[in-house]
Parts: sequence; structure tokens; C-alpha cells
Amino acid sequence: MKITLIGAGKLGNQFYQKMVNNPNIELIQWVNRSSKLDKSTEGVSIIKNLFDLISADIYILAVSDDAISFASDQISNEAFLVHTAGSVSIDALSNQKRKGVLYPIQTFSENRKIDFSKFSFGIEASQEKDLSILIKLTNFLNTKYILMDSNKREALHLAAVLVNNFTNHLFTEAKNLCASHQLPFNLLLPLIKETVDKLDVLLPQEAQTGPAIRNDQHTIEKHLNLIGDPVLKKIYLTLTSAIQNRYENKKL
Amino acid sequence: MKITLIGAGKLGNQFYQKMVNNPNIELIQWVNRSSKLDKSTEGVSIIKNLFDLISADIYILAVSDDAISFASDQISNEAFLVHTAGSVSIDALSNQKRKGVLYPIQTFSENRKIDFSKFSFGIEASQEKDLSILIKLTNFLNTKYILMDSNKREALHLAAVLVNNFTNHLFTEAKNLCASHQLPFNLLLPLIKETVDKLDVLLPQEAQTGPAIRNDQHTIEKHLNLIGDPVLKKIYLTLTSAIQNRYENKKL
Repeated sequence: MKITLIGAGKLGNQFYQKMVNNPNIELIQWVNRSSKLDKSTEGVSIIKNLFDLISADIYILAVSDDAISFASDQISNEAFLVHTAGSVSIDALSNQKRKGVLYPIQTFSENRKIDFSKFSFGIEASQEKDLSILIKLTNFLNTKYILMDSNKREALHLAAVLVNNFTNHLFTEAKNLCASHQLPFNLLLPLIKETVDKLDVLLPQEAQTGPAIRNDQHTIEKHLNLIGDPVLKKIYLTLTSAIQNRYENKKL
Repeated sequence: MKITLIGAGKLGNQFYQKMVNNPNIELIQWVNRSSKLDKSTEGVSIIKNLFDLISADIYILAVSDDAISFASDQISNEAFLVHTAGSVSIDALSNQKRKGVLYPIQTFSENRKIDFSKFSFGIEASQEKDLSILIKLTNFLNTKYILMDSNKREALHLAAVLVNNFTNHLFTEAKNLCASHQLPFNLLLPLIKETVDKLDVLLPQEAQTGPAIRNDQHTIEKHLNLIGDPVLKKIYLTLTSAIQNRYENKKL
């Protein structure tokens, strides 16, 4: 399967590493604007300009959300072009007759190799036969897949923001709290890991504990008195009342 | 070391299991009001009434926050009494001359065995020699410990609420979102695990991604349009503006 990879950010680099020595994949061009080379160390042709694209079975866009429809306009309308964004409709690939989406339900960082066998891609294609090509690609990448249209994918992306971006921000706030009391943040790591490991056997609503669900007003007030920062205070109040609201309604 | 364990909730049961066959610990009485037996299957004496307590080196209170000072009043003022609560001052043990705290920085659920070697206790004692006893106990339990006074412990408990209770509630909200779009929640588990695994090598502020930190107003508005529920909408707005606020200030 001939692949052209467009983009060399966090996701683009993960794709590159996963594809470059893959026996079932021929990576024929890599659009990488930050490289000064015209060939990668593994011998893949590096180009900067979309006008230099040659024929491939799939063109994978691993670029920022805003660049998707811009790139679409510059790529042949005969090409099978797929984007990788969670919250962008397949229709953003307005120029192509053959369009698709290959959304990795995962977070990527620089210098962290992600195991492709451990997450799923949400996939979608405008034509039946192209869906088969995407499924074949996920097999070659040794990943799982789930079919979903753009509406479902956008809802899943929103859920991903809750569990990844928002959760990570709570970690940052907790880290700052620890720092301001001369406590090492890593004291909390076993607790954080257990909170997540529990999800394998308990539903999150079954695992909910703490002063909010207990309606322990005394502890809640103590916590509010401890918080100096108005932004953290608002987070505390919002999540406390959200928890109380959810479980209050459940009891009715 | 002679121990009396008071309480048979989630934490009380974990302590019981960890102590009952421990060669260095003699569990002499277990105050367990829900049991109908007067001896546990392992032969430990079970009592219901604090008046029946006999002499021990440490009395461990694994009871609800509200019951701590009530229990203290009923236990001899000569006893070395420790409580296990994150947000309760050592002074709540008002009746004892020898008081202490043994706060497990972990979350406990029914039917889930927790590895004691993988978390720390925050410990505190009113007398130096009792601190040595608590340290010895943590060695017997094969756990780590960190000394902290009640103020620090209360701040750590607040941080624990952020990373455990609030994070878990975000998981619940994400699960509900998935359910309402006929998507399996377990699609998000690899993402959740990676979000946490990253903390071993990256600071959470270095790992922050998503529409809020990118100030991607287009995606934020799409998400807000997707959210029907006003409680979730408030969570989304609060955390999005908290993230924007934190990183905005950082740039100044």
C-alpha cells in the first residue's frame, strides 16, 4: 500500500515511525516543512510543496485543524485524502471525490513512542471501497478501528477533551497546590493511577467518592478556605456542585 | 506490635487484610459493628463497643471523619490513638495525650486489593516517640511514609480531591456523553491511561494540549453547541477558561 504522509508534528512523526519500516506499507513521500533534507535517514523522499505530490493509494493529512481544508484545495480531486482530526467534519475535504477520516483516539507527545496496538482509530470514508482501504491500513498498523460518522466523532472528541485536557489541567492545579505547600506531587501518582486502573472493573459513577458526593459541607468549606486562587476556587465550586447535582438527581 | 483496628469500611477492611497474617503485627481486637461474629475467620476478636477495648500499642481509627472526635472521647486518654483522615486535624483526638495521624494517600474500593508498597502514608504524632512507632508500623506494612503536619495534610487532601474525585467525575461525564452517542466508553481508556502514564516523564503543564490552550475558538464553540446539559456546559466553560487563564498569565 502506497502512502503519502503530510505533516511532521507529533502525530505525523508517530505515523512516520510506524510506517517507515513496515513491510506492508510503502511510504513514498513525506511532506515535512521543518526538514532541510530531501530524503529522510530511512530514505523516504521529503518534499515541502503539495504540488510535488506523486501518485499514492492514500494521502494522510496530519496537520492542524485549520490547515485541513486549505490542504484539500491544493491536492488533486482524484486523490484519496484522509484527515486525522477529531472535531473536523469529513466535508472539510471539499475538493476530493474520495475522502476519509482516520482519527486516532489517543494523545501524542514529542519523544514518547505510542503503542499502536493499544488504541483505536475512528474511521470514516465517503466511498465504500475506500473504507476497505482504511480498514486494511489499520490492520497494517496493527491497530483497532471503529466506524463512526463525523457527528459521532465530534462527540467522542469532546469526551476526549474531558478525560485528557481537563483531567491533565486538574493534575497541573494539584501540582501547583503541592508546590505551594512544599509537598512533592509524586505522592499523588499512586492515587492517580488507582483512579484510572479502577475503570477496568468499576464504572466511574460507582467509584465516585469524596466530600461532594457525601455532601460533607464541613470539608468542602475547609477546602474553600484553603484555596487562595479564584480560578481554582471556581473549578472547585463548579465540580463540587456538578457532582452533587448528578447524584442528587439520581436519587429522585 | 499490638494493634487494635477500629472500623470495617473500605479502609478498615484493607488494613485488616494487610495486618491479620503479618508476622510483625498482632491484631488483638477489631471493632466491626457490621459483623455478627465475635471472632473473625482468622481468629481476631471482634467487638462492637469501645468500652471493651483492651491494651494495645496503637489504636487505629478507620472511621468516617465525623466519628473521629466522638470515638476519641470514648477511648482512654492513655491510649496512643491515630486517625486516618486527610482533612481532619490531629487535634480532633482531643481526649488523648498521645495522638497521631496515619493518612493513606490512596483511594480504596470494596473488593479491590491495594498494594501497600505502592503508596505513601502522611504521618504525624504529638510525641516524638510515637512518631517512631508509626514509622515502625509503616515498615511492617511495607509502605512508604512522609512526615506532614495537619496543615500540609489538609492541602494534600484537597489536591487528592482534584486528581481523584474531580477526575473521576470527568470520566463519568465522558461516559455519559459516549452513551448518548452510542459509543463505547472503553474507546477512551487508552487515552486516559496515556494521560496518566505521561506524568512519569512530563510535567502536567508540559503535557497540556487541546482547544483551550490553543485558544481554538472554533472548536470550543462546536463543543459548546454539542453539549445539551447545562451542568456539563458549566464544567466545560470553567475548565476551558481556567486553562486559558493559566497559560495566558504564564506568557506575560
